[in-house]
Amino acid sequence: MTQVYNFCAGPAMLPTAVMEQAQGEFRNWNDLNVSVMEVSHRSKDYIALANQAEQDLRDLLQIPDNYKVLFCQGGGRGQFAAVPLNLFGEKLEADYIITGQWAQSAAEEAKKHGKINQIDIRRETAQGQASLLESSEWPLNPNAAFVHYCPNETIEGLEISSIPDTGDVPLVADMSSTILSRPLDISQFGVVYAGAQKNIGPSGLALVIVRDDLIGKARQAIPSIFDYKVLAESDSMFNTPPTYSWYLAGLVFQWLKQQGGLSAMAEHNEAKAKLLYDYVDSSDFYQNKVDPQYRSWMNVPFQLVDESLNEQFLTESAAQGLLTLKGHRIVGGMRASIYNAMPKAGVEALVAFMDKFAKQHS
Amino acid sequence: MTQVYNFCAGPAMLPTAVMEQAQGEFRNWNDLNVSVMEVSHRSKDYIALANQAEQDLRDLLQIPDNYKVLFCQGGGRGQFAAVPLNLFGEKLEADYIITGQWAQSAAEEAKKHGKINQIDIRRETAQGQASLLESSEWPLNPNAAFVHYCPNETIEGLEISSIPDTGDVPLVADMSSTILSRPLDISQFGVVYAGAQKNIGPSGLALVIVRDDLIGKARQAIPSIFDYKVLAESDSMFNTPPTYSWYLAGLVFQWLKQQGGLSAMAEHNEAKAKLLYDYVDSSDFYQNKVDPQYRSWMNVPFQLVDESLNEQFLTESAAQGLLTLKGHRIVGGMRASIYNAMPKAGVEALVAFMDKFAKQHS
Repeated sequence: MTQVYNFCAGPAMLPTAVMEQAQGEFRNWNDLNVSVMEVSHRSKDYIALANQAEQDLRDLLQIPDNYKVLFCQGGGRGQFAAVPLNLFGEKLEADYIITGQWAQSAAEEAKKHGKINQIDIRRETAQGQASLLESSEWPLNPNAAFVHYCPNETIEGLEISSIPDTGDVPLVADMSSTILSRPLDISQFGVVYAGAQKNIGPSGLALVIVRDDLIGKARQAIPSIFDYKVLAESDSMFNTPPTYSWYLAGLVFQWLKQQGGLSAMAEHNEAKAKLLYDYVDSSDFYQNKVDPQYRSWMNVPFQLVDESLNEQFLTESAAQGLLTLKGHRIVGGMRASIYNAMPKAGVEALVAFMDKFAKQHS
Repeated sequence: MTQVYNFCAGPAMLPTAVMEQAQGEFRNWNDLNVSVMEVSHRSKDYIALANQAEQDLRDLLQIPDNYKVLFCQGGGRGQFAAVPLNLFGEKLEADYIITGQWAQSAAEEAKKHGKINQIDIRRETAQGQASLLESSEWPLNPNAAFVHYCPNETIEGLEISSIPDTGDVPLVADMSSTILSRPLDISQFGVVYAGAQKNIGPSGLALVIVRDDLIGKARQAIPSIFDYKVLAESDSMFNTPPTYSWYLAGLVFQWLKQQGGLSAMAEHNEAKAKLLYDYVDSSDFYQNKVDPQYRSWMNVPFQLVDESLNEQFLTESAAQGLLTLKGHRIVGGMRASIYNAMPKAGVEALVAFMDKFAKQHS
């Protein structure tokens, strides 16, 4: 098979070792002579798989015992609705930190259910780089039911790496594009959620990690499949879960442990990102317009200074096996998504191609 | 690989030809050198797959042009909430026909959103068989926003094979366990929906077929991922869909066409069901307690007259490669789910085993 590196922002590439194992046991899982997707979610084999996946995730993130882990359907956007429906409680207002498209989309959905204070923290540096207001300066409402933010904006390539202090107000994070990329102190959060299709597994699964005391306060009219209490009490099996996605997520968690866990992933991801940003910064041919202190490790947007070369860049990179580098239409240019599963060799191949392309056209 | 027949009620077995193809192209789909689950849902390759799957489904069910097909997350239980949130409109009451556990669960969820008239049509024949009230005698409310029913009760093995006439009131059907088992006149329905994990594909996907004029009336507070209008306008890509489940559903639709379409499936399914019911009825060792005119083609519950042999029956059948025959705890005994993917040879093997077991213990 041709060596390719897939820079898709999501659904993203999965670790090669995971895909090899899944292909091998596709039609005969656990010596049952059937596929894992053909067994009952209530069978003892499947329940063992589900429990192991949760335990591996707990080990990786060192999730405290007073947090529940839920395996849900509906993706990140499903949680955009589930979060306010579960957390508003008696209160009817919440703070939403606006950093880009995904934070904004979460706020739009939440507006259906209560008063949303949008706090736009986007700023520009003196050099015209996209930047953010320090979290210590966020004008938070002490009466908010919760504070929602998106620590990594997949489209803009902005990341907030330190955890904001919101005092007694529960902090809720959409971690879809950054979860598992490094260690995380879960105890600082009320809820962490993430769509699977970037750093966890295939699309169709969303993870929710929620503090015990925030469960059981949902609105009466919440769809049951979104009710954290219903999901927690049924071990995420109130309805048939997306069993194959859960299985693959479990393989990814095992793979992460084999890589040395999240400290090792942090080193790996930081090194990959540094390689790419350093090259872009050293070049007159490419640019990245994000303040270095808020640059994402996971999604690296970059532009060709001469945008008339964009199509040629995309055609030639794809021909070299460097796939899906086109940037989101909102930002334009290119974007390399380099989640956990992207090996360093992929970023090295990208930089080598970029350098060759730049020399040919300078 | 040992020949096994998997009678699981869901997630159910998938056609062998589909699973072979999926395994073969697991890591190299469409010559892209990546898995179909690793490509963007907005890529031209994936959109072509999505469109083809929809067209094949439209061909199979002869879906009229004034119906939209939606590929959703959240399963059948997600639609239990989505149906009332989309369809109540100005009205606040709906009729729910109660035939068993699944119809009842749909009604419980709908009660969160309006007044639900539960119409329990369960009856018993003079011989003590489970039966139902003829649909012409259902006491329907002409002011209901819609009438909801579940044509096939997976647990009880009851099926309503003719379509009730609800006049101008839109008819809504949870077809999770019977869709695609035979031809269906979609024009008689307002909404047909189905969780995928029985006759469509793996869990994590739900199909909705909805008449145009019922779209766009959702409550303001509906989660966007459940809003038929949002889904219809985005070709089911408002958020990242469960791309791998959609792909497998597409392969199943192609396989159904290759089998000769739904008329051929109806013959196939009727023959399989007849084989099993005829054997059970001819036996003093086994029984099925459902009125023959309401017996399901898809889910066949049966009991050993001597229930003390249940465990032995299950152990020995499993050893013969006849898997997952244990009945639902509500009904007890055994259940053979014989969806589209179950070959006739599987039912023949089951009957042969049942007969041998009966002779050994009579």
